[in-house]
Amino acid sequence: MKWYFVAALLTILTSSQGILTTLSQSNGAYKYDYATVPFLAEVFKLLVSSVLLWREIRTSPSTRITAEWKSVRLFVIPSVIYLVHNNVQFATLTYVDTSTYQIMGNLKIVTTGILFRLFLKRKLSTLQWMAIVLLAVGTTTSQVKGCGEASCDSLFTAPIQGYLLGFLSAGLSALAGIYTEFLMKRNNDSLYWQNVQLYTFGSIFNVARLLGDDFRLGFEKGPWWQRLFNGYSITTWLVVLNLGSTGLLVSWLMKYADNIVKVYSTSMAMLLTMIASIYLFEFKPTLQLFLGIIICMMSLHMYFAPPHMLLDLPATAEPRPETLKQVVVEQKTDS
Amino acid sequence: MKWYFVAALLTILTSSQGILTTLSQSNGAYKYDYATVPFLAEVFKLLVSSVLLWREIRTSPSTRITAEWKSVRLFVIPSVIYLVHNNVQFATLTYVDTSTYQIMGNLKIVTTGILFRLFLKRKLSTLQWMAIVLLAVGTTTSQVKGCGEASCDSLFTAPIQGYLLGFLSAGLSALAGIYTEFLMKRNNDSLYWQNVQLYTFGSIFNVARLLGDDFRLGFEKGPWWQRLFNGYSITTWLVVLNLGSTGLLVSWLMKYADNIVKVYSTSMAMLLTMIASIYLFEFKPTLQLFLGIIICMMSLHMYFAPPHMLLDLPATAEPRPETLKQVVVEQKTDS
Repeated sequence: MKWYFVAALLTILTSSQGILTTLSQSNGAYKYDYATVPFLAEVFKLLVSSVLLWREIRTSPSTRITAEWKSVRLFVIPSVIYLVHNNVQFATLTYVDTSTYQIMGNLKIVTTGILFRLFLKRKLSTLQWMAIVLLAVGTTTSQVKGCGEASCDSLFTAPIQGYLLGFLSAGLSALAGIYTEFLMKRNNDSLYWQNVQLYTFGSIFNVARLLGDDFRLGFEKGPWWQRLFNGYSITTWLVVLNLGSTGLLVSWLMKYADNIVKVYSTSMAMLLTMIASIYLFEFKPTLQLFLGIIICMMSLHMYFAPPHMLLDLPATAEPRPETLKQVVVEQKTDS
Repeated sequence: MKWYFVAALLTILTSSQGILTTLSQSNGAYKYDYATVPFLAEVFKLLVSSVLLWREIRTSPSTRITAEWKSVRLFVIPSVIYLVHNNVQFATLTYVDTSTYQIMGNLKIVTTGILFRLFLKRKLSTLQWMAIVLLAVGTTTSQVKGCGEASCDSLFTAPIQGYLLGFLSAGLSALAGIYTEFLMKRNNDSLYWQNVQLYTFGSIFNVARLLGDDFRLGFEKGPWWQRLFNGYSITTWLVVLNLGSTGLLVSWLMKYADNIVKVYSTSMAMLLTMIASIYLFEFKPTLQLFLGIIICMMSLHMYFAPPHMLLDLPATAEPRPETLKQVVVEQKTDS
């Protein structure tokens, strides 16, 4: 499978996620407990990966599985990072409003680029760095509210702690992605086996989170397992299915492509959601959305187009690898 | 003189223009007739160019001057284009508000690129085309107002005629620039002689315009020459001096650099004015201004940086000419 098909599919599914979540509400409120959705998605991913792993082991005896605790325990770290990230996110939101938080979320694109360079030692050209910055600028532009009655997208009006925590949040979010890529690429283990480990810890941490929330609220809404399928509609199940599927596609990209591809997919998905909202939810198309789309398209072309195409030179320079898997293989040969 | 020094000087003077004009007002209104300023600037440019031409003829007997009417008459065309442009601008503003007109003005950057390619046959790489589009997007981003109490930067709320006229206006503005570049580069005539021709027609057309306005208003404010220095302050004279000087620098760039350099200079000047306004006029810094500046800086680097620097390749590719004059010379050798 070509990486850009997976990336395109991820874009479509991620953009459906926001739309499905909105559609799963009744009169702007959830009739079900939304906190149970990520847990079920994690279980869904675990089931799918287990079935695929079982089938792979049955058909190919050479399936690579590293089952020592020394290796397995590494898969707990993404869950830990996400746990810390959730708490930082919560703390950030006590200092800044959701709109500012959303805008700062675009910093994740740049921090991903930085950690991609620092930890995975992947080199990017000046043009690619510029493309990454432009992607963050483009998604931010599309979200600019401007000056309304109540608030203004003015710079630095929240306390400094809010911005520092927002930056930390962007760093942790990028770190989780970069670490997962490192995990998936560090050996030739079966993707499904890596997924099973990742999602087993994911499921456990999700249960712990649900339980923790119950304790915090003194079980006033009853234990989480009693709320599990309460008020679920077909659309709620589609939200679970969609969230699970995007997770599986991200895993695939982490092994066979990279974090930058994922970042482009999800950024394009955000713009796609906004375009779809114009038709579905009578969202007013703004000039800044239009500008943001142009900037992101330019960025996409700058990052992925072969240099000779950008500079209109004959195609003498070495071509980019057809699939990024080749890069992975080359990297392995290097080390 | 290196073209980028002239371009930098043009940026500084152009950005001072808006600030000086604001400072020349008393309580937000002009105490003098602003329409007389461009006329005096034209006369200033004519005087300076005449003196410089006289000095050049005296010191260098090889000064090239083509004085046949067949050649001289070509210098009337920029004035004619500006006259048509002024009327189109006036017509556009009956359909769209000044804010929309200002935003559409950024289209001029793209139309200049198109006419640069079509009429001057100058080739641009894909990356340079992207840089030009990004420059227009960046300047537009910095001007986005967003949704306020009264209006919203929503797309296509004005009548279609307004947008068509705005597009025509952007085309005419670009055409004037491109035609002037053609005039300045078509032969090896002295820059000062070319300027004298350009500004003689410019002065005549400015007088005609002032007279036309007087007739239209039935001389209710008296003839224009009686209003000429009325209410002029030191700042008003600085506005005249500044407008005249920027005109002379643009002429120089048209002969020894090109329209794209000019477009970058004036776009950067717009951003510089907005930054200066933060300090001078307590203009509130917005997120969109910050984003616009990043986009324009990226665009500048994409357009002018040597390709090998952008792609981190060794500098084996042919270097860009040190000054754009070389390009001019090469073009002349071609034809």
